[in-house]
Amino acid sequence: MDGEPLSTLCTPALVVDVDKVKKNAQRMIERCEKLGVQLRPHMKTHKTLECADIMTGGSRRCIVVSTLAEACFYADHGFDDILYAYSLPFDKVERCAILSERLELFQVLLDHPDALEQLKKRPLRDGRLWHVWMKLDCGNGRAGILHSEPEALRLAQAIAEEAGVQLTGVYAHCGNTYNCKGVQEIQAVAKETTSFTLQFMEKLKAVGITCKSSIGSTPSCSHPVQDMAKLSEVHPGNFVFYDVQQSLIGSCGVEEVAVRVLTRVIGHCPHRNQLLIDCGWTGLSLDGAGKLPTGYAVIEGHPNLKLLSMTQEHGRVEPISGKLDYSMYPLGSLLTLIPYHSCATAMMHPVYHVHSEGILVGKWIPTRGW
Amino acid sequence: MDGEPLSTLCTPALVVDVDKVKKNAQRMIERCEKLGVQLRPHMKTHKTLECADIMTGGSRRCIVVSTLAEACFYADHGFDDILYAYSLPFDKVERCAILSERLELFQVLLDHPDALEQLKKRPLRDGRLWHVWMKLDCGNGRAGILHSEPEALRLAQAIAEEAGVQLTGVYAHCGNTYNCKGVQEIQAVAKETTSFTLQFMEKLKAVGITCKSSIGSTPSCSHPVQDMAKLSEVHPGNFVFYDVQQSLIGSCGVEEVAVRVLTRVIGHCPHRNQLLIDCGWTGLSLDGAGKLPTGYAVIEGHPNLKLLSMTQEHGRVEPISGKLDYSMYPLGSLLTLIPYHSCATAMMHPVYHVHSEGILVGKWIPTRGW
Repeated sequence: MDGEPLSTLCTPALVVDVDKVKKNAQRMIERCEKLGVQLRPHMKTHKTLECADIMTGGSRRCIVVSTLAEACFYADHGFDDILYAYSLPFDKVERCAILSERLELFQVLLDHPDALEQLKKRPLRDGRLWHVWMKLDCGNGRAGILHSEPEALRLAQAIAEEAGVQLTGVYAHCGNTYNCKGVQEIQAVAKETTSFTLQFMEKLKAVGITCKSSIGSTPSCSHPVQDMAKLSEVHPGNFVFYDVQQSLIGSCGVEEVAVRVLTRVIGHCPHRNQLLIDCGWTGLSLDGAGKLPTGYAVIEGHPNLKLLSMTQEHGRVEPISGKLDYSMYPLGSLLTLIPYHSCATAMMHPVYHVHSEGILVGKWIPTRGW
Repeated sequence: MDGEPLSTLCTPALVVDVDKVKKNAQRMIERCEKLGVQLRPHMKTHKTLECADIMTGGSRRCIVVSTLAEACFYADHGFDDILYAYSLPFDKVERCAILSERLELFQVLLDHPDALEQLKKRPLRDGRLWHVWMKLDCGNGRAGILHSEPEALRLAQAIAEEAGVQLTGVYAHCGNTYNCKGVQEIQAVAKETTSFTLQFMEKLKAVGITCKSSIGSTPSCSHPVQDMAKLSEVHPGNFVFYDVQQSLIGSCGVEEVAVRVLTRVIGHCPHRNQLLIDCGWTGLSLDGAGKLPTGYAVIEGHPNLKLLSMTQEHGRVEPISGKLDYSMYPLGSLLTLIPYHSCATAMMHPVYHVHSEGILVGKWIPTRGW
């Protein structure tokens, strides 16, 4: 209940420090202003209206989403200039068309000529254009057409030349920054992705095409390189929450992580030198595979504790060394988990409990599905 | 939409074969009838009303749940005789008390004297009794008081002797069957758990205490041993869906698995010899850690394909051997994933699409939270 301390929550509970969220959002807004590049924040980590308001500075404009369910959710609540940054799924073309006809600016993404064929088969009403970003793979190795392949330029030209379709921009996701350790490595990837993207923009220019360019990932946008100023946009998302993974990559310090999972001790197992907590994978996710020195999460204020394993509703905690002093962890006592990957942890929760300095100030309800 | 084929669904989508669900449920009901033991099915895998109706044969009585949110959900919809089989969480005692005062039979579980103290502090109104199961650890190594420890008998006696509290039963979960391979190993664990539980019941009898006994797990209840007939109840849950994990343990054949995740091809990556699909960990979970020969799932009808890795909304698929023939997998084509762990996969979906022989017949909406 609002006004009550966090300790009144039933556990497990995802708690969001709204002051840290605002600080993380504000810092990214200022960083992009300073760099002179448009920030298009990604909604995939939280999928809530309230956090989207904070990330857009209240404008409710210029966002990127990972699912069409998110796009519809935001559109239904007055958001616009939405980029659905996901290789056009052929089963969702009609739903995309409806959003394109309804919003001022709904944008799709594609990376294959067959997807362009899908758009051609469904021209938009009232002379509207399909606004299309082309996804470029600049080394991430997931979606996107390889920046170095001649097909990339051919596809961009085909999009640009197609009636009823506009090439809005070129989009690259430098998810390969997630393999980095430290600012230097992050910036090397950021530089490479930027450079490949800008080289591709030059190729486009040479054939008479101009459009926007965008790269993104939380690591690269937390430590941008100067060349990124030459891009039109950046599109990070996780930074609003951050997490242990980001702190290990070097995107942030642990003190900037804005989310926690509150959990309680529900069992003492002295014969195994373990505690049980009421957070299983339903409350945290299995992301990270337990590979941290402290297992599946960091247990705040208890550096000697390790979250060893989880089942659906139970977590097994043991000391990294020595014998557990159970008097320190009576049944019912609270522990605080810093998630390895906040996107994955947030996904497990139907409600986020929002607090300021430990006092509850509200609830955020995320959207789910596709 | 009802009456339409599965291929009309947007993906990723969790689909439930209602005929297999009914067959799995009916077989377990008959198995327990034949054995002469009461079936108390667990709701944790699906958390829906419709599936609970099928598992209880329409009685809406005698179920077990893993969260208090499930207990409330079922209570709100006319279910009763509900066992909340989770070591009494001290933050939820008041909510448990309210359910105990409201339902004909709401039952809690505990494994520590401190939990009994919590119940004493909150006597129920109108002379009602707390109905308490004591959790015994018979080798599973998670929650429960060790069956071999003298404290176990002392706690059972303390519960039985406490005014306002009734010792309803002794409860053991043989989750250690999940380490088994084949019926013989499953039955060895089932036999051991049953034997430890029955020995404990004898000790209780010797001090003048009689109450119910219950063990459970899908492997043990899919292949019960004769001694289980001496128990009062069994409490399996996953069997209604089954999954790849259960087929590897030996609980079922793959053809009995009642759930699938439908996904579509959204990318061709010939330079990596990979496909991309629209199912990431938000649609499947990371359970199983990708350790199957086919990765994170079995791709039905395509034994040479492996789901190698997943990010939030993408799956990377590659052939186990040879080069991918992309003409077999055009963009937009459907693939069907058999989940490694159906409890974990179902948890990721806000709606389950129910079909009979490939024709949609309805939607089931699970409850979430704690």
